Amino acid sequence: MAKERVTVVDIARAAGVSKSTVSLVLQGSPLVNEATRAKVNAAIRELGYVYNRGAANLRQAKSKIIGIVVNDLTNSFFAELAVGVDAVVQSAGFVQFLANTGEKIERQREVIASMREHGVSGLIISPARGTEAADLAPLVASGIPVVLVVRDIAGAGVSSLTSDNRAGALAAVRHLIERGHRRIAFLGGFADTAVFEARVRGYRDALREAGLDASDELVIGSAPSRAGGVTAIEQAMMLEDRPTAALCFNDAVAFGVCDGLRARRLDPGQDFAVIGFDDVIEAKTAVPALTTVSVDPQGMGERAAELLLKQINAGRAEAQAIVSPVRLVVRQSCGAAIERRLKEISS
Amino acid sequence: MAKERVTVVDIARAAGVSKSTVSLVLQGSPLVNEATRAKVNAAIRELGYVYNRGAANLRQAKSKIIGIVVNDLTNSFFAELAVGVDAVVQSAGFVQFLANTGEKIERQREVIASMREHGVSGLIISPARGTEAADLAPLVASGIPVVLVVRDIAGAGVSSLTSDNRAGALAAVRHLIERGHRRIAFLGGFADTAVFEARVRGYRDALREAGLDASDELVIGSAPSRAGGVTAIEQAMMLEDRPTAALCFNDAVAFGVCDGLRARRLDPGQDFAVIGFDDVIEAKTAVPALTTVSVDPQGMGERAAELLLKQINAGRAEAQAIVSPVRLVVRQSCGAAIERRLKEISS
Repeated sequence: MAKERVTVVDIARAAGVSKSTVSLVLQGSPLVNEATRAKVNAAIRELGYVYNRGAANLRQAKSKIIGIVVNDLTNSFFAELAVGVDAVVQSAGFVQFLANTGEKIERQREVIASMREHGVSGLIISPARGTEAADLAPLVASGIPVVLVVRDIAGAGVSSLTSDNRAGALAAVRHLIERGHRRIAFLGGFADTAVFEARVRGYRDALREAGLDASDELVIGSAPSRAGGVTAIEQAMMLEDRPTAALCFNDAVAFGVCDGLRARRLDPGQDFAVIGFDDVIEAKTAVPALTTVSVDPQGMGERAAELLLKQINAGRAEAQAIVSPVRLVVRQSCGAAIERRLKEISS
Repeated sequence: MAKERVTVVDIARAAGVSKSTVSLVLQGSPLVNEATRAKVNAAIRELGYVYNRGAANLRQAKSKIIGIVVNDLTNSFFAELAVGVDAVVQSAGFVQFLANTGEKIERQREVIASMREHGVSGLIISPARGTEAADLAPLVASGIPVVLVVRDIAGAGVSSLTSDNRAGALAAVRHLIERGHRRIAFLGGFADTAVFEARVRGYRDALREAGLDASDELVIGSAPSRAGGVTAIEQAMMLEDRPTAALCFNDAVAFGVCDGLRARRLDPGQDFAVIGFDDVIEAKTAVPALTTVSVDPQGMGERAAELLLKQINAGRAEAQAIVSPVRLVVRQSCGAAIERRLKEISS
């Protein structure tokens, strides 16, 4: 199976020309006549020769790869983000290579170094938990265009694209208050991330402006996953004064909260109001359909890619911090169904 | 922001040595004394110099990247597979770059070409729908180690790691028959894939050996996604003679089937038996917990990575076709809960 790699020498032999002639054809030189060029190209196709971009990079100092580094590939949010990035970079003639850090800073260092070594044109990074500006300093100093997504790093000096997490949480909790809920929990997420901090801030602000209890026992962290949601709602239901509604750190946690409610024979949306954050694809088709703060991961990926391509094409660019607006998408899990039924009954 | 790339000349200047001395240090030459080596390494760290692996590849003709090409990143099966691959290649000192084809053969051609150009040490590929041996011929001819996963391609001449799909489907449907179901559907999946064909074959074999109806109307294809599952169960429920149970193409479809049942006020597991295929992480925590044929995507990723590394280290290797055994994991969605309750009542 394992043949030697096809070389320029093999092409030259097959085409009956010199090695230098093959090199000139590969470089697109006008010095080679049409007939010879055709012969060489035929040999290249026949033998399956691949132009060594490693060598080409040395001469051209540019490649056609965009790197994307994500912190948790098992969260479908990041798969959707990557699909959005891919759509844009693909139409610009780039190929996207993705690497997963699994929230490990050491692994993040390795994959970023590897992507730099392989000459990526630019990087989109959703940083691992605990990443500091110093961790990104060598990368930033190299001048390779970088766009941070989801999590911004204070002082990193590169462009970032994040969501208005505080405003989203504020809108969601106001909505729950308008529906009559007085005891509202915040469930899931790692407390040491900026995203968590901003979402909890919006949650507390909404409670405070309504004069409601924002006590610490109602904020229950967990892994930002479906399994984390199950444990968070378990803990919430063990409180003496139980909540009747929850804003969840993300949709994965919200699905877990729904699972945990069902396991207790409670009907999400009817017996307990649940709101997620992100609006992943399955939020719409889930039963009950998930009310959530739409961050639009695919759209976010597209915008991040556009921002990065602009920087790559410009050669240099000022760092921009873009905060995308979010919107509350009201579906069934927050009790819309109940209200509709009440309306039907009263009309 | 965009500074020039740090070069060997910059390092030499900062360390107060010649360019050749820096090169010797970078090559790990024993000709440089310790003090000089320390000075050069300090300058390398300080300036954030990155050894250009593109150049290194030209000399060493090997790199430390494993490429993984998947056909549908939005299916969590592939994210879990990639996490399994990552765990193994990481401990072997490799970095994994992932690319998504979204089932497009043209895109698959592009990403494979790009990975080859960038000198990957080996490739793990879950081929896009409709991929033929001819599509992979140039890659195979190049001698780069390749392992196909999930979908094998007849005549490709490379190693493959697939699951025993027929046996898994057979076991699942036998289980439904043992529980008293007589009208069993097969829901979801694209009919033009080898995986679909093998799973439907196992399904039909089980029905046939029990003397049951295996008519075509009970095999309802759809996109292999949660949304696809919703439409497939809708279609099944419109049959004159409705099924009471279904084997689903994969877990994503099975979750969609559960959603669709709930939307009709039917309780999955109680009113209709559902079995999935894959055993993704959330199968265990879902409510009802999903009975499924365990393919163990993470374990499959690990085994594929081990097979690939073996080939890389051997330099050459015979193509192996490994078919992994699968096992039925009985949880609640197929009615285990009902049976348990009946047992409790009768005891």
